[in-house]
Amino acid sequence: MALVFLPALARMAVCGGTHGNELSGVYVVQEMERQWKEKGECAWPIPVTTVLSNPRAVKECRRYIEKDMNRCFNRATLSSPITDSSPYEVRRAHELNNLLGPKGSTDAIDLICDLHNTTANMGLTLIHYTTSDWVTLHICKYLQTKLTKVPVRVLVLDVPISDAYSLESVSKHGFSIEVGPQPHGVVRADIYTIMKEAVDLTIDWIHKFSSGMVFEGGDVEAFRFIKSVDYPRDPETRTLTAAIHPQLQDRDFCLLKRGDPLFLSFSGETVKYEEEEPLHPFFINEAAYYEKEIAFHLGKKMMLTIPSVQVQKD
Amino acid sequence: MALVFLPALARMAVCGGTHGNELSGVYVVQEMERQWKEKGECAWPIPVTTVLSNPRAVKECRRYIEKDMNRCFNRATLSSPITDSSPYEVRRAHELNNLLGPKGSTDAIDLICDLHNTTANMGLTLIHYTTSDWVTLHICKYLQTKLTKVPVRVLVLDVPISDAYSLESVSKHGFSIEVGPQPHGVVRADIYTIMKEAVDLTIDWIHKFSSGMVFEGGDVEAFRFIKSVDYPRDPETRTLTAAIHPQLQDRDFCLLKRGDPLFLSFSGETVKYEEEEPLHPFFINEAAYYEKEIAFHLGKKMMLTIPSVQVQKD
Repeated sequence: MALVFLPALARMAVCGGTHGNELSGVYVVQEMERQWKEKGECAWPIPVTTVLSNPRAVKECRRYIEKDMNRCFNRATLSSPITDSSPYEVRRAHELNNLLGPKGSTDAIDLICDLHNTTANMGLTLIHYTTSDWVTLHICKYLQTKLTKVPVRVLVLDVPISDAYSLESVSKHGFSIEVGPQPHGVVRADIYTIMKEAVDLTIDWIHKFSSGMVFEGGDVEAFRFIKSVDYPRDPETRTLTAAIHPQLQDRDFCLLKRGDPLFLSFSGETVKYEEEEPLHPFFINEAAYYEKEIAFHLGKKMMLTIPSVQVQKD
Repeated sequence: MALVFLPALARMAVCGGTHGNELSGVYVVQEMERQWKEKGECAWPIPVTTVLSNPRAVKECRRYIEKDMNRCFNRATLSSPITDSSPYEVRRAHELNNLLGPKGSTDAIDLICDLHNTTANMGLTLIHYTTSDWVTLHICKYLQTKLTKVPVRVLVLDVPISDAYSLESVSKHGFSIEVGPQPHGVVRADIYTIMKEAVDLTIDWIHKFSSGMVFEGGDVEAFRFIKSVDYPRDPETRTLTAAIHPQLQDRDFCLLKRGDPLFLSFSGETVKYEEEEPLHPFFINEAAYYEKEIAFHLGKKMMLTIPSVQVQKD
């Protein structure tokens, strides 16, 4: 298999609290800042910037104050001028773009690892924007090998980088990590530990890569986002009339086939999956998606083949 | 065993959304209101009032808007005059006291069943204020017999009724039902179904009791609240430095003995239970208790003996 030489990764950022009530990421960043105070530059083998993305939302333990910040990093929002009426999160997105970007420029930081939690049973899911970022896919392959406590999966939101709206899209090789299930406003030690290990392994990979190690290529299984499905709702009041069916709940990334149960109405009727094409549901019953009118997403499994990689020599 | 004759129960209320992000109760009340629209007085064999307790908090999917409403039903708060600066929840508590009380009066409704969810693995827990309310304890015994999917437990907060601060204290025989684990802002079909069954069985018990059925007495296991334990925190910032230990997480009502792990610090150290007396922890890692500085409560198991009961003849 061909060996691809890639530019070195000089600098990475670990961001938590982009959603203020997703607590594992908040405490991973806090712990890394404690380690930095204790050990200084020796804390990690590569330079790492830590960022608490939305400090006001963290303080109030809410997803956001005025606007979901992780939808504010598209080119349009970042290029619009800040005015007196700009929401807090738009201002903060501009600040973070100045700190870690500017998005799309050569000055942008090499890699952002943005830490998220979900109420869905997603294990550890790495989300990013393309099927051809060898760095991110190699990090994922590395996590799949080293992290054995939970399934590690890759999700691809295949949109142009200018439309990409989340924090990690500011960096050259960004990805977010979703770890669940964890209720929002709660930190579970098991979920925290998995997330911390994933961050440590990411740093480890970058260090080894920068030191000249060759990483063998191969196949990486990934899921591509296809579409979202909403809850059954009362047509007038828009209130839910059903919950996720117990046979679907907690079964993120299973294969959903025609006739499989989707919802159980509050009066006891089952709503079934009616489409011909079997697909994989994920973000099943994520708390933050009720207001976005999303019960779950559907995706399609695909196999990506990645080349062996090594850092370019100077 | 002695047979005790008790006054009939003419009217009960089922309340949900006292905390606006505890969604099973919100949807149980919504479903009961749908049944009422469909069937009218035939919906249940006894008169049932349904109440959405904190509609503004439900709309915003938050625990409360200005003040935790389920701490507003003590005598002092209910007897203070409403002013322009009274928080929304204090106003609403006065309204509900007028509707369902007044607390402590003969006009008060016979029974309030107030529906709550918790992020803790509490199964179904019935909470009330005394060890001598035969009606509530018989309903609990009935639920323990009929509900087999989850453990059904009784928790006693042994405080004078005037100090009792929660909604169910407004009625003559009130109790709240906690069902979990369910993340706040999420409805799980399994948790919803258990809660709905518990409400239906409570109505069923009251109907049978009012119809003259004798309910045999016996022993009921209960837990008495002893004290609360906070998370380890940074003395200056008050931020958490540890999470519930994985060996304690989800083990509500287990027996905690000296040396058992309580917390796992974010840097990996274990904090142990140091007290001589073994006690039972519950509400372990409840999201809403972080701000109250409570990691879990500790309780003591006790056995209550209840007499056989029958309704008084007119």
